[in-house]
Amino acid sequence: MSFRDHIRSCNNYDPSRVVPLTAGNARIGLLRRDNAEVLQRFSDVFTVAEQRVELVACGDVAAASRAVDAVVDALVAERRVPKWRNESFDVAPRWGAPPVFRLDRGAVPFFGTRAYGVHLNGYLRQGETLYLWVGRRSPGKQIAPNKLDNLVAGGIGNEHGVGETLLKEGEEEASIPGSLMSRAISAGAVSYRMETRLGIRDDVLFVYDIEMPADFVPENRDGEIVHFELMPVLAVLERIRTTSDFKFNVNLVILDFALRHGLLSPDDPEYLDVATGLHRPLD
Amino acid sequence: MSFRDHIRSCNNYDPSRVVPLTAGNARIGLLRRDNAEVLQRFSDVFTVAEQRVELVACGDVAAASRAVDAVVDALVAERRVPKWRNESFDVAPRWGAPPVFRLDRGAVPFFGTRAYGVHLNGYLRQGETLYLWVGRRSPGKQIAPNKLDNLVAGGIGNEHGVGETLLKEGEEEASIPGSLMSRAISAGAVSYRMETRLGIRDDVLFVYDIEMPADFVPENRDGEIVHFELMPVLAVLERIRTTSDFKFNVNLVILDFALRHGLLSPDDPEYLDVATGLHRPLD
Repeated sequence: MSFRDHIRSCNNYDPSRVVPLTAGNARIGLLRRDNAEVLQRFSDVFTVAEQRVELVACGDVAAASRAVDAVVDALVAERRVPKWRNESFDVAPRWGAPPVFRLDRGAVPFFGTRAYGVHLNGYLRQGETLYLWVGRRSPGKQIAPNKLDNLVAGGIGNEHGVGETLLKEGEEEASIPGSLMSRAISAGAVSYRMETRLGIRDDVLFVYDIEMPADFVPENRDGEIVHFELMPVLAVLERIRTTSDFKFNVNLVILDFALRHGLLSPDDPEYLDVATGLHRPLD
Repeated sequence: MSFRDHIRSCNNYDPSRVVPLTAGNARIGLLRRDNAEVLQRFSDVFTVAEQRVELVACGDVAAASRAVDAVVDALVAERRVPKWRNESFDVAPRWGAPPVFRLDRGAVPFFGTRAYGVHLNGYLRQGETLYLWVGRRSPGKQIAPNKLDNLVAGGIGNEHGVGETLLKEGEEEASIPGSLMSRAISAGAVSYRMETRLGIRDDVLFVYDIEMPADFVPENRDGEIVHFELMPVLAVLERIRTTSDFKFNVNLVILDFALRHGLLSPDDPEYLDVATGLHRPLD
């Protein structure tokens, strides 16, 4: 295990295993070929060709979303897709563009549509030592149960902004009041493209840092985090370098934090792998 | 002009215009096809094939360097390469690997070997305002004369380390004593791949930040910077967004600084272009 291994496993995407999902002339997703094949029988919604799959359902966003959702229902019934039923993500050619349709979060990797999230590094200094607040994910989570996580992290659902999601997740996950969260500082984004059992994760994570008051102890409200712990950053880095205790993408977010705060040395043999491995250019 | 334009112009590399330069099984450079063609007559040093150019000069690093240097002399005589004669760069398959040969800095873009530099963002806070120290490059510079620059920037010559180069350039370019430079914090690297008139720039810039004392005024000693000025960061960003006043790669280094320090908002329509456009993955 090494920093490089975590970066590689989040970027194991192989373009030869995938065809684009298009709407008009725009690419809106990445379908693994086995997933593309499954869509052939839904010919009123998708046209499946050798080199691409096209969304052909007509109508506005609501109509396209309903048509895709009927397909998702069939895929859920066949256990190809774990439907969440509580959260949908906008599907668009790029961030900020009008959505083409809305997709149940559980179906996002199947279609390989880009997903956006927000992660918050909560840190504090005590003497010379920098600490990070680390949460342990609930054993009931669909993704990465029991793994270690940032202080706050969540997906950006449709019609929610970045700052708004940070505020909402901060309250639900760590009881951080808005007055405190206003001190959070945006610090870029981590991006990667990863093949999983379900399909392709094409993820962009907006990253924030917050210096936490020494007397604030985060408390989880929504049951997604079972426990918070303050860990010295250098111990976190050693744990990242040698284990898979942290959720796959949280490794990358914390490496970005460490790099930006001068906690990795340019003499580290993995320094450039980290510095050039956390921000996959968008296409 | 936009942030995106600066990122694009540093990443205008088109793989179809280039063949790899190899040594054994390792790629060590990127030759534009017209440059590769020129090497055909130096068949004791390079074997030029349709899909690659191979270094075939025998011997150790010193012998290979002498053989390539003789080719560089011929290219300089034909004005294909501007020879600097004062600085040579290690050529290796990757950072930290043993060098295959040493190359005059002026010939680096011709062969498209990877070059490493170090850039220092010097900033200070006065009240609520963050300022950056900005230098103006001498009109006599071969590259980007008269353009605006970071407080300190320089190429990493062979056998010099990152921190060592920062220290040396800090003294020469801005009279920053070692005791002050020890406060500099490493903050990652900016990477890009760019075609220029001469060939391919495959650049990695180690980035540092330093909070400067309010009473320190940098003074140039080596004649490369004619003037230093303290500019509000937001004015610098506006100037980057709307002009080409800054040296091409300094735009990227300052955008990285701004992003890391929360000076760009996730609501900025160019936020993700910046966040995912400054760190070309190495290959």
